[in-house]
Amino acid sequence: MSKKTTIALLSGGLDSATAAAIALEAGQNVIGLSFDYGQRHRKELIAANELASFLNLNEHLKLNVNLAAWGGSSLTDLEQSIPNKGVGDGIPNTYVPGRNTVFIALGLSLAETRGATQIVLGINSMDYSGYPDCRPDYLAAYQALANLSSKAGREGHGAQLWAPLMKWNKVQIVKEAIRLKIPIEKTWSCYSGQNQACGICDSCRIRDAALIKVGRSDLCSTNCI
Amino acid sequence: MSKKTTIALLSGGLDSATAAAIALEAGQNVIGLSFDYGQRHRKELIAANELASFLNLNEHLKLNVNLAAWGGSSLTDLEQSIPNKGVGDGIPNTYVPGRNTVFIALGLSLAETRGATQIVLGINSMDYSGYPDCRPDYLAAYQALANLSSKAGREGHGAQLWAPLMKWNKVQIVKEAIRLKIPIEKTWSCYSGQNQACGICDSCRIRDAALIKVGRSDLCSTNCI
Repeated sequence: MSKKTTIALLSGGLDSATAAAIALEAGQNVIGLSFDYGQRHRKELIAANELASFLNLNEHLKLNVNLAAWGGSSLTDLEQSIPNKGVGDGIPNTYVPGRNTVFIALGLSLAETRGATQIVLGINSMDYSGYPDCRPDYLAAYQALANLSSKAGREGHGAQLWAPLMKWNKVQIVKEAIRLKIPIEKTWSCYSGQNQACGICDSCRIRDAALIKVGRSDLCSTNCI
Repeated sequence: MSKKTTIALLSGGLDSATAAAIALEAGQNVIGLSFDYGQRHRKELIAANELASFLNLNEHLKLNVNLAAWGGSSLTDLEQSIPNKGVGDGIPNTYVPGRNTVFIALGLSLAETRGATQIVLGINSMDYSGYPDCRPDYLAAYQALANLSSKAGREGHGAQLWAPLMKWNKVQIVKEAIRLKIPIEKTWSCYSGQNQACGICDSCRIRDAALIKVGRSDLCSTNCI
């Protein structure tokens, strides 16, 4: 029986690389898909390239979809500052309106074209519970839409959205990444848009706290390139 | 009270121009949004510009999102032929996998950023009943997703998807377009990708049949530029 094909949305960060590696370990043919959406930390796309190469993906596609055309987030609007005082209540300004909805839609388009049966996502609801589009009910609603959006979906064999990290916290994700031998030093999490990781944005803080907890402070963001 | 803002997905064709005009007639502030998705009939974008200008939209944004990167449709893959033998059963190869899901997702992103309360769409289920993503159940599922995808949605005041033409056939749409004084000669429907409308692709046939039925054969595709 031929391998099933999975589309992996690959940001260049730790979570999506771990999700892609989980799909590979399950014996699937994985196609990577990355987006230049006008993010200030566009450097993550270099990391996505390196990770796709390290994971030996059959294919890695990159698409421009310039959400910075209308901004609405500190990641896509350079006039907004990246928060660096720790994660608070509510939705942080790093939330990009509609980003996951757009990226998953593009994943569904590619999946339908290539006959892929899954889209594997790095989203998880624990760390960023403030993001409305990282929650289980959001993903369930998207699956219901996907099931109606294509011929295959309506026939009961459309692409399934798969978020293996959904209920994990960052420590669990880091442990899984280490088990899967992901080169964590090649992943890029920093939001700051600098050439070196800042170590103080929410994304660096959450990553580094988890790495310190598992005894791998050598992999903390400011120690990596 | 200030006007409500509506995002109008504007392809350059007759249907979306009519939908946008309906939103304008309802007294809304309309922002047009058009996509260069690598469609062979990219000429429709010139029509979208002219229509946005004619309708006097406050703003008209254009975004590149190159679905031709993976093709899967005769509209985005030049190696596939456009059907010209009339509409048959099943899904025609002009169906673009995931296109509406991607476009509506981008509309939701813009709506959330601008605080728009509606997204007006030209989709209708009568002519293209073969397209899975032009049906009422698809749109209802998308609304359920939209309600969970943003903070405003979760609070009950997110953007509403509005498809005023959903149950109309092309004759009804043409009549409404004439009533709204849309310059039908400026709309572009042809799929062929030529500089002149072909008159024989499904899109030209359906449009022209309706125009002939309402006694306006002077507006048939091959008579327009």
